Amino acid sequence: MDDHFLPIVRTVAALRAHLAIWRERKQTIALVPTMGALHEGHLSLIRMARAQADKVVASVFVNPTQFGVGEDFDRYPRDEAADARLLAAEHCDLMYAPTAADMYPAGFSTSIAVAGVSEGMDGDFRPNHFAGVATVVAKLLIQAGPDVAIFGEKDYQQLAVIKRLAKDLDLSVEILGAPTARANDGLALSSRNAYLSGAEW
Amino acid sequence: MDDHFLPIVRTVAALRAHLAIWRERKQTIALVPTMGALHEGHLSLIRMARAQADKVVASVFVNPTQFGVGEDFDRYPRDEAADARLLAAEHCDLMYAPTAADMYPAGFSTSIAVAGVSEGMDGDFRPNHFAGVATVVAKLLIQAGPDVAIFGEKDYQQLAVIKRLAKDLDLSVEILGAPTARANDGLALSSRNAYLSGAEW
Repeated sequence: MDDHFLPIVRTVAALRAHLAIWRERKQTIALVPTMGALHEGHLSLIRMARAQADKVVASVFVNPTQFGVGEDFDRYPRDEAADARLLAAEHCDLMYAPTAADMYPAGFSTSIAVAGVSEGMDGDFRPNHFAGVATVVAKLLIQAGPDVAIFGEKDYQQLAVIKRLAKDLDLSVEILGAPTARANDGLALSSRNAYLSGAEW
Repeated sequence: MDDHFLPIVRTVAALRAHLAIWRERKQTIALVPTMGALHEGHLSLIRMARAQADKVVASVFVNPTQFGVGEDFDRYPRDEAADARLLAAEHCDLMYAPTAADMYPAGFSTSIAVAGVSEGMDGDFRPNHFAGVATVVAKLLIQAGPDVAIFGEKDYQQLAVIKRLAKDLDLSVEILGAPTARANDGLALSSRNAYLSGAEW
């Protein structure tokens, strides 16, 4: 790992100020939305983003609205310093780490539903999950206005929801899916693997 | 009325191609969304838009999703040629008149709900009305990306829904309300006044 400098911004205004400079220079931008706790799977998305655009932005935001009651929002792993080191080592150009209070200020009232692809499978077991995902991803895409955004194919239904959403809302972004990174034993890499004991793994 | 030339575009791609030229020149853009059947009330919005930005775009789209079952979608007044003449006379710079098939192609599945401000009043009597409004206005704002968008204060609850929506989705647009234009007898100008007989009026 070298000491590549990674700027971190926390507000939409700071994010847009950064991006405006790149846009002025006609540089293309790829966004990789994450919930942090980065692992090799995320880093493969960052590398794919590098190949797609001049500049790579990673967002790190554990989105409360996509966790259901009794799900793992409170214990979801968070280590921003480690995330920043990993992103810097991949020569990511900008980390966007907004606070929940900035993403959902008092009075926030808007929710985006994507019918069809949100139904069945995960959508049946986690009733508001995909509305939470669709709303936060729409916000991130509108905030950053990237040329390309990259999501893992691991969360396959989520990827379908996001592709549908981007098309339906006329967002001028290309949504790309990235192949699932796996451990040597075949387990799909996931931040939630931290919950598994050796025997479960 | 002079013969000012008014270009008409019908697709998002054609709209964006026009706007890109103005943006390249650093010209600001105001959008005035309408459902056509233009009257003096709309024209006052166009004039307000002129004062706010370098270029004025009017959209004309009778949005099917904001009409309930048994409402007046089929008989809502439509006269695109008359609308175009009125906009040209106000030196509007571009008319965007998409088709329903372009706005809602097969497979369209996304809906935007704005809680709170959509409830009570009109929201109680027209259950899906404001979701239809919020979704189409989000699309128009994302398609055009204007600096300013202007809506009549006549539809007061609608204006509140749109302001909330724009803020919540981080759309970088200023939403302005324009005062209600009235006939000499005080009646608020509305395309639906065409339904009123002399006695009702």
